Amino acid sequence: MIERFRPRSVCRPAGVVRGIGDDAAAFRLPAGELALVTTDLLVEGVHFRRETIGGQDLGHKALAVNLSDIAAMGGTPREAFVALAVPETCPPAYLEEFYRGMKALAALHEVNILGGDTCASLAGMFVGVTAVGSVAAPRLRRRDTARPGDRIFTTGFLGDSRAGLHLLGEGARRKTAADRALMEAHRRPRPHLAEGRFLAQAPGVRAVIDISDGLTSDLGQIAAASRVGARVHVDRLPLSPSLVRFCDRFAWDAAATALSGGEDYVLLCTAAPEQAEALTRDFQRHFGRPLYDIGTITDSKRVEMVAADGQTAPLTAGGWDHFRCRDAGPAPDKG
Amino acid sequence: MIERFRPRSVCRPAGVVRGIGDDAAAFRLPAGELALVTTDLLVEGVHFRRETIGGQDLGHKALAVNLSDIAAMGGTPREAFVALAVPETCPPAYLEEFYRGMKALAALHEVNILGGDTCASLAGMFVGVTAVGSVAAPRLRRRDTARPGDRIFTTGFLGDSRAGLHLLGEGARRKTAADRALMEAHRRPRPHLAEGRFLAQAPGVRAVIDISDGLTSDLGQIAAASRVGARVHVDRLPLSPSLVRFCDRFAWDAAATALSGGEDYVLLCTAAPEQAEALTRDFQRHFGRPLYDIGTITDSKRVEMVAADGQTAPLTAGGWDHFRCRDAGPAPDKG
Repeated sequence: MIERFRPRSVCRPAGVVRGIGDDAAAFRLPAGELALVTTDLLVEGVHFRRETIGGQDLGHKALAVNLSDIAAMGGTPREAFVALAVPETCPPAYLEEFYRGMKALAALHEVNILGGDTCASLAGMFVGVTAVGSVAAPRLRRRDTARPGDRIFTTGFLGDSRAGLHLLGEGARRKTAADRALMEAHRRPRPHLAEGRFLAQAPGVRAVIDISDGLTSDLGQIAAASRVGARVHVDRLPLSPSLVRFCDRFAWDAAATALSGGEDYVLLCTAAPEQAEALTRDFQRHFGRPLYDIGTITDSKRVEMVAADGQTAPLTAGGWDHFRCRDAGPAPDKG
Repeated sequence: MIERFRPRSVCRPAGVVRGIGDDAAAFRLPAGELALVTTDLLVEGVHFRRETIGGQDLGHKALAVNLSDIAAMGGTPREAFVALAVPETCPPAYLEEFYRGMKALAALHEVNILGGDTCASLAGMFVGVTAVGSVAAPRLRRRDTARPGDRIFTTGFLGDSRAGLHLLGEGARRKTAADRALMEAHRRPRPHLAEGRFLAQAPGVRAVIDISDGLTSDLGQIAAASRVGARVHVDRLPLSPSLVRFCDRFAWDAAATALSGGEDYVLLCTAAPEQAEALTRDFQRHFGRPLYDIGTITDSKRVEMVAADGQTAPLTAGGWDHFRCRDAGPAPDKG
């Protein structure tokens, strides 16, 4: 079955010695650079349902979540490997679409698909993707290097993917353009590779992580790894116009959705305060959109949020529920 | 859950910049060498049953099959990544044993476990392992380089694993020492890494592959990739004394078991005829056991076997059944 992957799986042949069709792939990484490797598993019924995500979108997403990890390290992705367990109930056309979606994203970032393993599954589809990239050692960004006083930024909007997931579960009801944008954010996340490379060379950038589990959780990872605290300003959370409209319509709490929605696949970083102004200016100039300043790293070891009125509360998985105004809508239940 | 993997997962810290606990692992490969990457998926109910393989053995085997691929390329394995989907029915003790078995084999070969992903499975356990290794370009061995006239060798016995699988399915009946050796061959295959490196530097060695699907299938892979034929002498197939005893007892056909049993994880290679004698002599001297000469590469495009009486027949998946003597026992049914 892996043979069906083979046509056009190598889009950047330079440096590839052996691809699909030998015991292992053999290739060159850029001389002197560090190798980066990440692996992610998507399980049907746990991470996705075939009823609500098409094959192309699943292929895109399975690779995108790995590329997002490479982006967070400041690296450039180069090769990908795909392990697929496929149930009998999965039609060949779905797999064809899966391959197509993955190859399209791979080609966009000059990533070769150099190998994989495909086999039967007795129940449900399993998609394991391993991405290999590289980065020059001085540009490597990690999550344990935040320092008190650092400003905290995100490279994009938060909460869109979570709202999109809700809309996908709603089925065939007529969707607005804003709805479609939210669903797209969930099904076809765009890995922030250019943003990651920008942050890797920008002076003053310290810790970087990608937001996969939600801002609350991933900022907590930076804080724990760096042994620092953090303070996030709720009124500075970057909300897309589509999300604001969605939250109005469904009476969802936009801040709660942004804080803990997850699967955003934008980057979260910290930067030295004295370089923050130049960083945000250069980012805006380079990408034509803002780097969102959402708070500050502290030496308190606590991760907190600050409301518009200055009130402070712990930023924990369920923290926002206890904090938000009484008249706000229900928090989204993850699904 | 991946955190439980972390203690002692790095046995060779030199060159490791980031391991488990960041978005991706970051490490150095030996300067100037090619990177080797292979990935394999083991699915419960398809590749293994938890009732017949303990956690330690499964952890060992999941890594061993990947290391065997690196061995076939002539390389040295360096880092491993583990994606696990675990059903609720899997007790934590089984996972602990899994980690222990994998780490023990990893440590034996100085392989670091640098990352992974663990999540829930709705049905059955899925184990995806990716191994990263390296090899100096001139030592890379591949499967498409066999030439007519080459002699064909294996680095070890064939068929033991298939016999061991049968014994494992038999349950608690008292086992002889020979039985235990066969079951061990199935549950804890030894990747032929030293043998692979030996073949990678030995003059005259051309194509190399590891025998995972069975000699018939994997020799077919070499022949197809190299656009050559092959002739295997049935009376030269390397059979362990344990397998011979097993086949006597169960009235199995030893040659059929050796030809298509599979999961042998020894190496199959071809070498220029003029260097074959020095190669077998040096191998014997280095490893204290023979390199088994089983046949010859031909220019016929056919893969054939030759019986003791000189009779020839196509070597295909079911080929042996039609060829073997009428008084032989039943062919083993796979699975």
